[in-house]
This record gives sequence, C-alpha cells and structure tokens, in this order.
Amino acid sequence: MNVLGLIVEYNPFHNGHFYHLEQSVRKTKADITVAVMSGDFLQRGEPALVSKWNRTRMALKGGVDLVVELPYIYAAQKAEIFADGAVSILDQLSVTDICFGSESGEIEDFIQAVEWEELNKNKLDIEIQKQLKSGKSYPRAFSDAFKAVKNSETILDLKQPNNILGFHYIKSIINNHSSIRMHTIKRTGAHYHDQDISHSRIASATALRKELLLNRASPREISEFIPPGTLEELTEYSADNRSLHSWDNYYSFLQHKIMSDTEDELREIYECEEGLEYRLKKCIVHSSSFEDFLSRLKTKRYTRTRLQRLLVHIYLNSTKNFMKQPLSQPFPPYVRVLGMSQKGRSLLSHIKKTLSVPLITKASQSEDPVLKKDILASRLHGMVHHSSRNSFMDEYKAVPVQYDRDLDKFFT
Amino acid sequence: MNVLGLIVEYNPFHNGHFYHLEQSVRKTKADITVAVMSGDFLQRGEPALVSKWNRTRMALKGGVDLVVELPYIYAAQKAEIFADGAVSILDQLSVTDICFGSESGEIEDFIQAVEWEELNKNKLDIEIQKQLKSGKSYPRAFSDAFKAVKNSETILDLKQPNNILGFHYIKSIINNHSSIRMHTIKRTGAHYHDQDISHSRIASATALRKELLLNRASPREISEFIPPGTLEELTEYSADNRSLHSWDNYYSFLQHKIMSDTEDELREIYECEEGLEYRLKKCIVHSSSFEDFLSRLKTKRYTRTRLQRLLVHIYLNSTKNFMKQPLSQPFPPYVRVLGMSQKGRSLLSHIKKTLSVPLITKASQSEDPVLKKDILASRLHGMVHHSSRNSFMDEYKAVPVQYDRDLDKFFT
Repeated sequence: MNVLGLIVEYNPFHNGHFYHLEQSVRKTKADITVAVMSGDFLQRGEPALVSKWNRTRMALKGGVDLVVELPYIYAAQKAEIFADGAVSILDQLSVTDICFGSESGEIEDFIQAVEWEELNKNKLDIEIQKQLKSGKSYPRAFSDAFKAVKNSETILDLKQPNNILGFHYIKSIINNHSSIRMHTIKRTGAHYHDQDISHSRIASATALRKELLLNRASPREISEFIPPGTLEELTEYSADNRSLHSWDNYYSFLQHKIMSDTEDELREIYECEEGLEYRLKKCIVHSSSFEDFLSRLKTKRYTRTRLQRLLVHIYLNSTKNFMKQPLSQPFPPYVRVLGMSQKGRSLLSHIKKTLSVPLITKASQSEDPVLKKDILASRLHGMVHHSSRNSFMDEYKAVPVQYDRDLDKFFT
Repeated sequence: MNVLGLIVEYNPFHNGHFYHLEQSVRKTKADITVAVMSGDFLQRGEPALVSKWNRTRMALKGGVDLVVELPYIYAAQKAEIFADGAVSILDQLSVTDICFGSESGEIEDFIQAVEWEELNKNKLDIEIQKQLKSGKSYPRAFSDAFKAVKNSETILDLKQPNNILGFHYIKSIINNHSSIRMHTIKRTGAHYHDQDISHSRIASATALRKELLLNRASPREISEFIPPGTLEELTEYSADNRSLHSWDNYYSFLQHKIMSDTEDELREIYECEEGLEYRLKKCIVHSSSFEDFLSRLKTKRYTRTRLQRLLVHIYLNSTKNFMKQPLSQPFPPYVRVLGMSQKGRSLLSHIKKTLSVPLITKASQSEDPVLKKDILASRLHGMVHHSSRNSFMDEYKAVPVQYDRDLDKFFT
C-alpha cells in the first residue's frame, strides 16, 4: 500500500494545492494521502486566516484522507526545524512516499545538493559565517555560501522558498535513514512570493490572502481560485461576523506585552537574540500599526519572517527554556489527529500498533507541554473574536473532524 | 500661609467633591489647595474613566491649585499603603492642613482610634489572626477585631470605607511625627457605596460611573451632579469616538496574559498569594466577560477590590520584586506635578528649596523606575483606544496642565 505524505499549511487550501495533490497521487500511485499541517500559527510567522479545524475541513474536502497537526514548536520555525518536525511525524505514520512542490521540479537536484552539503560541511560553514558577518540574513548567507563554495552549474536555487523547504525535507529523510521515497513536482501557475492574482485559475496563497485581507475581497470574489470546500469554510467563518485573521488583530496584544514585559523578560523569549529585546521595546512605542512596527524592526540582518516568528513566540510567551527540551528530541512527542475520512480512519487503526509515540485525538488525553502549548496557541488565535470567547474549553474537548467522502458530508 | 492638602481620585470630579473642597477651605482657612491624585489606576483596582490629564483639568477648574500624582505603586493599594504614600507626598509639599471626608465627621474619633490601636497592637493582632482564620477578608477581620477588642461605645465604624481611609491618614500623620493639622468633614448627600443617584444634586462617584458605564448615560445626562468643568472634559473625551474606560476594555488583555503566563510567572506578580495563580488560570478559560471572571475569582477571603488590584498589577506586569524596593522607602521617590493654577505655580517655586526629593514636571527628566511604571500605566490605560495609539510618546513629553483661574482658561 502506498501512503503519500504531504507537508502543508493550506492557508487557505486553493486550486494549486488541489493540483499538487492530484499530481502527487498519480506520481506516487498512492492509495491514501496523509497531510501534516501547521496549526494556527504558520511557518512564516503569521496567524492562520481561519482556525486549523476549518483548514482541516478544507483539506478533507480537497482529497486528503488524514490530517495531523504539525505542533507550533515545529511549525513557526525556520525551514530546517519545520522540515525535521514534519518528516518525523510522517515517519511515525508509516508514510511510504513524500511529494513536495518546488521551483526546481527535479528530485535529483535535491538529493545531490544534500549529499554535497554533507561532504562539504566545514567549507560551507566557514563561508556561511563569512557571509553572516557581512550583515546578511541567515537564509541569504546560506544560499550565497552554497553558490560560492559549490561553484557548479547544476546548482539548486536556494533563494526559492520551496526549494529551501524541499532541501530540508530531503535532508531530514536522508539523515534519519528513513525509507520514505522522495518526489517533487514543479510548481505551476504561481510562485510562492507572487502577490498578484494571475489569469490562470491558480493563484498563490500569498496572493489570495492579499485579496482577502488587504483588498477586503469576499471569499466569493476569489472563488475562481479555490475549490468549493474552501469557499464554504471561508464563507461560514466570515458569516459569523468574524473577520479572517491577520496580524492586525493581534497587534494590541503585542503592544501590551512588549511594553509591560521588562527587557530581561523579553530576552527569555525563544529567538530573542542579540539585543532584539531593546529594539522591540524601542520600536513599539513609536509604531501605529503592525505593519509600521514590523518595518521599524526590520534590518538587513533579520528577514521579515524571522521577526514575525519571534512575534509569534512573544504572543504565545514561549521561552527559550520551554522550547529547549522538546526541540532536542529526535521524535515528536505525539501525533495529534485533526481530521480523517473513512480511509484515514482505517489507516489509523492499521498503524496504531507501529506508532512509537502516543496518538492524540482529544487534547484532554495528554498533559504534554507541547500539546498544551498548541491548545494555548489555538485559544490565543481565536480570542481576537468575541464570539470565540466562550469556546476556550472547546479546544480542550475538540475531537477530530470526520468526513464521509462518499456522501460528501462531515459527521461526528 | 495655610496650605490645604487633599487626597483624591476624582473619578470623576463631582458636586460632592466641590462641596468638600469648599467646606475644607473654609474650615482650614486655606490660602491654597494641593491635591495628591491617583493616576490612571485607582485604589479600588479600576482603570480611571478618563486619563489623569483630564481629571487634572477637572480638579483645576473645580478649585484646586496644584495637582500632583499619587504614583501607581501607592494608589492601587489597600488603605494603609495608599494613605502612607499620599501623606508622604503632602508632607513633601509643606502642606499645613489635611481635611478628608468621612462617615464619622469627628476628627477626635480618628485620633483616639489610632492612639488606642498603637497601645493595643498585640491584642489586636491576635484577634485579627483569629478573624482571618475564620475565612474573613482582611478589611473585615480588621474592623471586626477592632470592635471585639475595643469593646467601647464611642467606636469608629471601620466598616465604612472613608472611615478606614481616614484612620490610615491619621495613623500616617501621627507615625511620621508630621506637623500637618488634621480635619475631617462629614460626607453628605451620598455614601461611598451608594450606587444609585439620589434626588439631591450630590451623587457618589460610584453612582455616576454606574450611570455612565452601565446605563450608558451621556455626560450631559448626569450634568446635574457634576460641575461644568467635569461635563466639558467628559464630553470632549467621549466626542473623539472614545468610550469612557472600564475594565471591560481591558479584559481581553487579561485573558491573553493570564492564559499565556505560566503559574510560576503569575506567582511573581505583586499580591498574587496563596495559590491565586492557579485560580486565575482556571477561571479565565471559563469566563465570558470581566464581570463573569471576577465573580468566578471571588471568595469570602478576598474582597472584590483586593482582586481588582491584583488584576491591575497583572495588567501592568508589576512583580513582587519590582514593588519591594520603592515600597520599603519612607519617602516618595519624587513629586510629579500634573497641573497648576497661578497660585499653584507660586507655591511650587516657594517650596522647591525645601523638597527633599526631585520635583518632576516632565517624565523624560527622570529614570526612576516608579515614574517609568507610571508612564507605562498611562500608556496601557490609554492603549485601548485606537486614537491613542500614536500618542504613546506624548506621555513621555507631557508637561503639566496650566490653568489661569482669572481667565478660566488653560494655556501651555
């Protein structure tokens, strides 16, 4: 049986994701598809447009059979940790194949790059340090060092965000001696960074978020670019007088925390390095909006996503001390199920015996601090809407979304 | 020269305050009046209706000549610390007379009670401990112990809030061997706890706040009970699309902080005692509003005001460690001027030489942590209104309100 593993954010699930899913199933001859999906805060350091439960429903309707959560401790992270966390979870789920979208589209490019890096670690590290000293951000220093040391023509372009992620997926699989087969599909129709909607029926999630948040488009107005299931979820979410989530909704909480915490307290927050605590406190009193704040914080040294992730850690009050222990483990602390179809459920009962970590279907089943942080993240993601205030306990009791693909219906 | 000192909150300044001011001036034959006024968070653990600058203007228009700030570290406190802080500041300002409103109205009652307490400290302490063990709140245990031990008929009723405050004013003055003359005036027309507006033109501040906040009365609708200067300030404040401040405006910040802080972090907050950190975390996830939260938190042991003060300390992130040093000092760290009339200015230049602590007219003049906390308190008081977001720096640069009594005009 071929079990396809996907690493996703689905913010929101759109036609490009649907296309990727279809192509990947065909390419891997998959019998079943598992997605490990970021929870309520994403890799780029942003709150998800809608809750992870809504995004789970989008994924199930879109064709995924089993959705499990990528815990926040892995999700709101640089590519390396994000990839390690996601691959370790897919490995637990006995996935046989991984297929990711990339700008390259050639799996050999990735394997070769990872193997080359392993052999040239020392040289590369020296070059990275040199590049960092010139004031570059880490991702930039990494891709420039790669280029400088490798000095070859068949190089993987590590400035492309999906190539970077892919590189780290492959690296994780190889380093873990995992038996997962590796595939990639060339991204089509839209690039990750594309902010504008093109005339094809595929637009990047970034472009769609821009339409929804900045241009205040209704979900219906982007319906050309999203499957019906996504349109339904977005519409239902907005209907209850809730706006889709963006950093703007959280800005006043950042203001409060950054102003009221001392420098010493901010320094304890994960990823608050090199005196950023002073910069945070200085910039916050002068800023009039999240965007203004971020642009004041920004330096050549720190990418926008690096800073946004720091702000997620601040918002969730995640200290270095808290993150240290779970991030030092080679295995995920648990696998948490967010949703499944009939196929997904049968896979679960099949692999239950081989899982080496607990399988969580209800948050109240475990006292794991990583899980508790995910519950907190969901509560603090949802709290900006009045209507969610009463549902703090629901997150604790929530059970996986169950989807009947034949009837195209959710049930409990 | 007789300098009258008043200890006030003016939230808002109303006819009862005006009456008290007039009577006190007459009684003390005062040439000039100084008020030490709580900043943006008040003794009962509540945010002030409007900013301290607006309340300063109300006070100046109402007849006060000099308004100085009672720092938050003294203001949001039980009667004892509140009184010690206020008296120590009035002492610095060479005040000759203090006159406070009380339910008793007889200064001899207070002096006698304080002297009796001094002589019977041990007996009283034992009785207080006994009363506390039966589960009573501290104020209740104190007044009951007083009654039980003193066993006399001419007793001061220490269940009355203004009598309690008065008792501690007198105690501070006597303990500090201050030469300030002591007076009290019987409160008239409204009791402190009265929540309803009566038919006289005097209503308690509690009743007025209830009208404004709960019954959503416009400032004009309570104009019968407030001087024109207060009406003007309240109207101006509301006009800018800002609502008057109540705990409701701050509730979501409490949610965020109490949910994201660990129990260990909450335990570090000033006044978080006896496992309250667990109770806070437990109650917050079940609550749907500030009122709901407070009623869940409430026990016989803790008065509503005690808990509200704790919530102020949480909102301002004031730790035990932070409060320890300044509260252990016999002198205030500085005297900060909020506003003055011509008379007030001449008093200031007169007493500048005798002040033993710095005189602050602009926050940027000092790095004192108590002052910095007051700036933070003002920023965090104001931040709930969008329109205030750009004015965080203003608090730092703000200069005292100057009032020309002859022209009835403010100038800069």
